Amino acid sequence: MSVKIALLGFGTVASGVPFLLKESSEKIQQAAKSEIEIVKVLVRDEDEKKALLAKGHHHAFVTDIDDIINDSEIAIVVELMGRIEPAKTFITRALESGKHVVTANKDLLAVYGSELFEIANKNNVALYYEAAVAGGIPILRTLANSFTSDKITRILGVLNGTSNFMMTKMVEEGWSYEAALAKAQELGYAESDPTNDVDGVDAAYKAVILSQFAFGMTIDFEDVIHKGIRDITPADVSLAQDLGYVIKLVASIEETSSGLAAEVSPTFLPKDHPLAVVTGVMNAVFVESIGVGESMFYGPGAGQKPTAASVVADIIRITRRLHDKTVGKSFNEYSRPAQLAKAEDIKSAYYFSIQTPDQPDQILRLMEIFEAEKIFLKQVLQRQSGKDAVRVVIVTRTLNKTQLKNVTEQLEAVNDFKVNNILRVLGE
Amino acid sequence: MSVKIALLGFGTVASGVPFLLKESSEKIQQAAKSEIEIVKVLVRDEDEKKALLAKGHHHAFVTDIDDIINDSEIAIVVELMGRIEPAKTFITRALESGKHVVTANKDLLAVYGSELFEIANKNNVALYYEAAVAGGIPILRTLANSFTSDKITRILGVLNGTSNFMMTKMVEEGWSYEAALAKAQELGYAESDPTNDVDGVDAAYKAVILSQFAFGMTIDFEDVIHKGIRDITPADVSLAQDLGYVIKLVASIEETSSGLAAEVSPTFLPKDHPLAVVTGVMNAVFVESIGVGESMFYGPGAGQKPTAASVVADIIRITRRLHDKTVGKSFNEYSRPAQLAKAEDIKSAYYFSIQTPDQPDQILRLMEIFEAEKIFLKQVLQRQSGKDAVRVVIVTRTLNKTQLKNVTEQLEAVNDFKVNNILRVLGE
Repeated sequence: MSVKIALLGFGTVASGVPFLLKESSEKIQQAAKSEIEIVKVLVRDEDEKKALLAKGHHHAFVTDIDDIINDSEIAIVVELMGRIEPAKTFITRALESGKHVVTANKDLLAVYGSELFEIANKNNVALYYEAAVAGGIPILRTLANSFTSDKITRILGVLNGTSNFMMTKMVEEGWSYEAALAKAQELGYAESDPTNDVDGVDAAYKAVILSQFAFGMTIDFEDVIHKGIRDITPADVSLAQDLGYVIKLVASIEETSSGLAAEVSPTFLPKDHPLAVVTGVMNAVFVESIGVGESMFYGPGAGQKPTAASVVADIIRITRRLHDKTVGKSFNEYSRPAQLAKAEDIKSAYYFSIQTPDQPDQILRLMEIFEAEKIFLKQVLQRQSGKDAVRVVIVTRTLNKTQLKNVTEQLEAVNDFKVNNILRVLGE
Repeated sequence: MSVKIALLGFGTVASGVPFLLKESSEKIQQAAKSEIEIVKVLVRDEDEKKALLAKGHHHAFVTDIDDIINDSEIAIVVELMGRIEPAKTFITRALESGKHVVTANKDLLAVYGSELFEIANKNNVALYYEAAVAGGIPILRTLANSFTSDKITRILGVLNGTSNFMMTKMVEEGWSYEAALAKAQELGYAESDPTNDVDGVDAAYKAVILSQFAFGMTIDFEDVIHKGIRDITPADVSLAQDLGYVIKLVASIEETSSGLAAEVSPTFLPKDHPLAVVTGVMNAVFVESIGVGESMFYGPGAGQKPTAASVVADIIRITRRLHDKTVGKSFNEYSRPAQLAKAEDIKSAYYFSIQTPDQPDQILRLMEIFEAEKIFLKQVLQRQSGKDAVRVVIVTRTLNKTQLKNVTEQLEAVNDFKVNNILRVLGE
């Protein structure tokens, strides 16, 4: 007996699905206890269908979603179109007609996840999405199945391959942001509008999903502070290196005494931190917990085969559960009331880069501002920066978001001071 | 309703189990759908029982295994005594009396696993052992649940914390093997007889278990070539660094065209390989596969809480399956006939360190020996080594085990040559 599936979309990732179903067929059949058969593939229009057939793809391509929804033989619908619509409508209709759904659509899940989970639960069908976070890294299933015994205190993630590729070029080769972006676009890693990648939007979507699995809390996308890598200069990168750090776009989700704090921002990582060696388009999720302590899950965050591997693992899981007659339980069962952290409980060290006129009293005034907020400093470094100006770089000890807000306002209130950058520093 | 469990042994790891059951109780209950209650703990004798009670441990300690086997209320037996006997007898009796078993006993599983799996299957009970490989890293469940869609081609693992701690000291601080061992013993990482750790025996046990999950093949412990770190000298370590490598004790399991090749040996890792930054007592498993490509799973390989986290995750899994009425399926369901690789299909680059008299014709003779075996060289380095002698260091291109055997015999046949060390080199 075979389990029949339909694919929605036949782009890069989707075409990796038949590849793996064929290459790993023996292993898959052992795990799934059934054969898995792609019986229909939804494409945009007749032109795409013709083009794919001409390329030698021998699937039953259809252009009307009803051909899939009304086909009672199809048990699993695999959505790989991306974006919000029509994916949301198609997934909703599939779930409502009793079909299980596998998707890699993080944008959709981060914003409309709760709504879709409810529809899945009501119809007693599965909605799995391992590929939505960190592509080929099986992090969601690991959090759901293996960290059941543990209490996670913080998650740190390098979750966006494009920005990590760019930061790697900026750190290892001294490239500017603009040069790194141009290269990422040339290689097809970044789109012509790179906003989602470079401004931390994509990583923030993933942080929303990780929060559910790691902390049982569903937070809104708007609750994830996000700041991208656009303002990182070669000077910041080189100062970071002098101080013993590398800069990466890091998502952090932390449970404080008052609740959850989630943030995506360029972050100073100590050079010997396991995340510091995650280079190029690779992703990693670093987990801090009371049981295991420190663990890290590393792998490709995107790409045809890695993403398809996660998608097919979800398909196998559902097929196996159909065989065991246990299908329908949520992908993530950990759930607690969501609570956001108070500003004074969100703590970190910070790097400040400030331009001042080259006069000794300027430094004194700067120090007084930090002193007034009771912020202790770990490293201070002053360098000539152009004519009659100096750049003062400060790495603080731990401070909280209220102190950060106050000191930033104070610094910006002084006309002579130009705040170049303020970035999080881990490990202080 | 609660699920009742018994612990066999109450050493370091075992005492971490009640800690996690308490600290993560809310989360555990959501995942397990039941409370989990430790109702009996087997200890060696009355003296140990008295000592534990005096220390404030309030468990129902028993000294007779029959008190647990004959207690029909106990659903899960957790074996944390270690070694082969009496653990093997106790586990066998527990399985035969219809109890599910969780264990961290890699020695036992590597040698008698097949026998125990059969008893578990016959009695339709679970036998789980996530903690047996790489302690706190949930690698076995990840291989069993997430790599179902993928075809693994090679596994590389830093699987022994003690030897990795020692190698880290030898690489980063230039310590000798003896100094590193003394420190490991002082810190309690190494036993007074360190054989299992430093000779690769422990890592080879883990390689046997990993082979089952990653390749579906059950190989014998004797089929894993193992060589330890005793013969690594500061000269080897410093030469490796000059050549761009770090030396670590690495387990590799690879599927070649003729079958599986498993080996534990000190290995040259390129400095930028993700495994190269796994330092101290940390472990990591690096997976190469046709779908995901390269992924790595990093974390503590031992220790009370990390190991207990894996043990409790297994307990939760069984409890959940009892609730879902799906208990009894094997931890690993992937199974193919085992086939061992032929010597000519096992390929790697190698490092040769050879002592010769300080005469030019010696080097020529050396080169002729490699030439005769059609072995191509990548790097050759000659250094003065004491009076009238030189050390010649060679990093080869890829060769197979037959070539390795032949060239080694030829080198050893020359009286003037002293082979200091031959080590695997990855990434060439």
